[in-house]
Amino acid sequence: MEQKSADKYFSTVGDGSGLAQTDGLYKEELQLALRNRGMPLEALRYPITPTGLHYLLIHYDIPAVNPERWRLKIAGLVATPLDLTLEEIKKRPRRTIPVTMECAGNGRALFAPRRISQPWLLEAIGTAEWTGTPLRTILQDAGVSADAAEIVFTGLDQGVEGDQIQFYQRSLTVDEAMRDEVLLAYEMNGEPLPPQHGYPLRLVMPGWYGMASVKWLDRIEAVAEPFQGYQMARAYRYSQSPDGPGETVDLIRARALMIPPGIPDFMTRERLVEAGPVTLTGKAWAGRVSVSRVEVSVDGGSTWSEAQLGESASPYAWRTWTFVWNATPGAYTLYVRASDADGNVQPIVQQWNFGGYGNNGVQRVNVIVR
Amino acid sequence: MEQKSADKYFSTVGDGSGLAQTDGLYKEELQLALRNRGMPLEALRYPITPTGLHYLLIHYDIPAVNPERWRLKIAGLVATPLDLTLEEIKKRPRRTIPVTMECAGNGRALFAPRRISQPWLLEAIGTAEWTGTPLRTILQDAGVSADAAEIVFTGLDQGVEGDQIQFYQRSLTVDEAMRDEVLLAYEMNGEPLPPQHGYPLRLVMPGWYGMASVKWLDRIEAVAEPFQGYQMARAYRYSQSPDGPGETVDLIRARALMIPPGIPDFMTRERLVEAGPVTLTGKAWAGRVSVSRVEVSVDGGSTWSEAQLGESASPYAWRTWTFVWNATPGAYTLYVRASDADGNVQPIVQQWNFGGYGNNGVQRVNVIVR
Repeated sequence: MEQKSADKYFSTVGDGSGLAQTDGLYKEELQLALRNRGMPLEALRYPITPTGLHYLLIHYDIPAVNPERWRLKIAGLVATPLDLTLEEIKKRPRRTIPVTMECAGNGRALFAPRRISQPWLLEAIGTAEWTGTPLRTILQDAGVSADAAEIVFTGLDQGVEGDQIQFYQRSLTVDEAMRDEVLLAYEMNGEPLPPQHGYPLRLVMPGWYGMASVKWLDRIEAVAEPFQGYQMARAYRYSQSPDGPGETVDLIRARALMIPPGIPDFMTRERLVEAGPVTLTGKAWAGRVSVSRVEVSVDGGSTWSEAQLGESASPYAWRTWTFVWNATPGAYTLYVRASDADGNVQPIVQQWNFGGYGNNGVQRVNVIVR
Repeated sequence: MEQKSADKYFSTVGDGSGLAQTDGLYKEELQLALRNRGMPLEALRYPITPTGLHYLLIHYDIPAVNPERWRLKIAGLVATPLDLTLEEIKKRPRRTIPVTMECAGNGRALFAPRRISQPWLLEAIGTAEWTGTPLRTILQDAGVSADAAEIVFTGLDQGVEGDQIQFYQRSLTVDEAMRDEVLLAYEMNGEPLPPQHGYPLRLVMPGWYGMASVKWLDRIEAVAEPFQGYQMARAYRYSQSPDGPGETVDLIRARALMIPPGIPDFMTRERLVEAGPVTLTGKAWAGRVSVSRVEVSVDGGSTWSEAQLGESASPYAWRTWTFVWNATPGAYTLYVRASDADGNVQPIVQQWNFGGYGNNGVQRVNVIVR
């Protein structure tokens, strides 16, 4: 868990504020966009996202892991530290859960000013069937001390961020870590995890934004105090400034997305649609809360019509929505929004925050009907 | 093969010249970068790219194909038009070839000025084991007429480009189409093609830039005259202006790429390396010509050292290169370049062209050694 501090080796992007004061994207943001793959929105048609289309956010490099030498270490405030091989983990109770995952930074590049980081628009999403063993049973076998406040998860991916040389690390309270649905996953969609999704083992934290689901797990450690690593104390906070502590980013906010109808213009990705009845469809999700309603607007948010809702594959997976639009010639901007069982309605415009997190402002789809 | 012309429905990006006169990227370029996935360069460690890490360039949308209803049509100047199911194609002679594929636009965003389009840096690459049936045997069964000049391949992906509503279409001369190694592929890395790589069937044209390997094949047609569709006559030309006919873009040019050594800075992707012997390694390829030499420079191109070459999995697949660098503290820009058996040496800076194609100028990797 040790974090070495590093001198400032690398150049700053932009004016040093961390925010882009220009509409144009920096080359460094492009580099990240080309590495960190989004899900093309037409893939909303699949209840389970084909593995190679699921979004990917990788802070550093995909590590090369030798599965023969790899061990999962359970350490810290536990009665019995454990050191488990992948085979030992696979022999434990097995469970599969369909989970919709979304990057906390989804929508970041739609905020203005824009935090200079991975510049997601709306595509940092995906739903997979994750198979693994419940974390709880392993923590119970290790015997987490009553003095433990949190469980810290350390990945094998290493890099420099905020002037610190670090392995990617996140923590959960013991209560969250002990929840039923928390998995140590070794399969995605029925196959061993691909390297880019955390091979050989990752945490899957259903209902949370993706940063909680630590990939390439190396070590799980029970600690007495809330963990203050970079990815907890400095990144992934809802705050109004780089210094403000703000609120922690945790559960996924309600969101509906639409498969852009018709056919695309190559460059603008705007859509050409034939007049007549058009079935608008897509998916909606709200973390670990259920989606109660999806509404569509074809007049830029003035009036809303309720969409039909389908089933979801699990309490943590998106559900299909559909709405038949009688399209007549003209130019339109289509909106869609979700509401959840807690009464949250997806905002037209989400309140700005410094890190560019949790932006579930409604999708706008520009369409020409002819 | 009919191309309907369309009014100009969609807005222009930039000043109308098609070129960006600004360093900052347009939002439309970002949209494309987030859809069209690159291969993170650390994945150069895999001889065969894990399927979900192979680059993807999709002009329009990934089509939804019903495999029960899908048929491959062979038509035009043939003695016997064919209409084949996927099962019929799978019963034909089967062949697997490892092929390195690269997008013709790889390196586009490194040209200045920059063509406004998919803004690749260096990551539009991947190597897969493609399995299918040789195209030649099917063309022979259909009996291509001696009057045929070209074979036209039409995909199921439809969109608007250059004011034309079009299905993606490319052609090959009959001689090229009849080459031994040309496949109609239904498997990638031993699994059915994923939707995003052309399910249920695609062309694989080893040694050519990726635009030739038409995905989601619908129709193959023998024609008497060189095909003048958008993707042949207007896109994929080496020319100095939007109007100049230029040379056709075809075979992949020599290139070597390096796995960036050490660990990355999150934002700049520059590298931090510990002093001492560092094994620099990566892959090199040159279309259907063999790579004869790979050289590394650690002083910005003043002096070059020869790297060791490994084997390649096929005449169309990349080969590994390695070079041990005795790194001493300081700031470096590492270069690597390939030469091919025809005597072509990868240029430090490739000559500019309007479309931003074939930019095999050498990779630069910024490294801090401490």
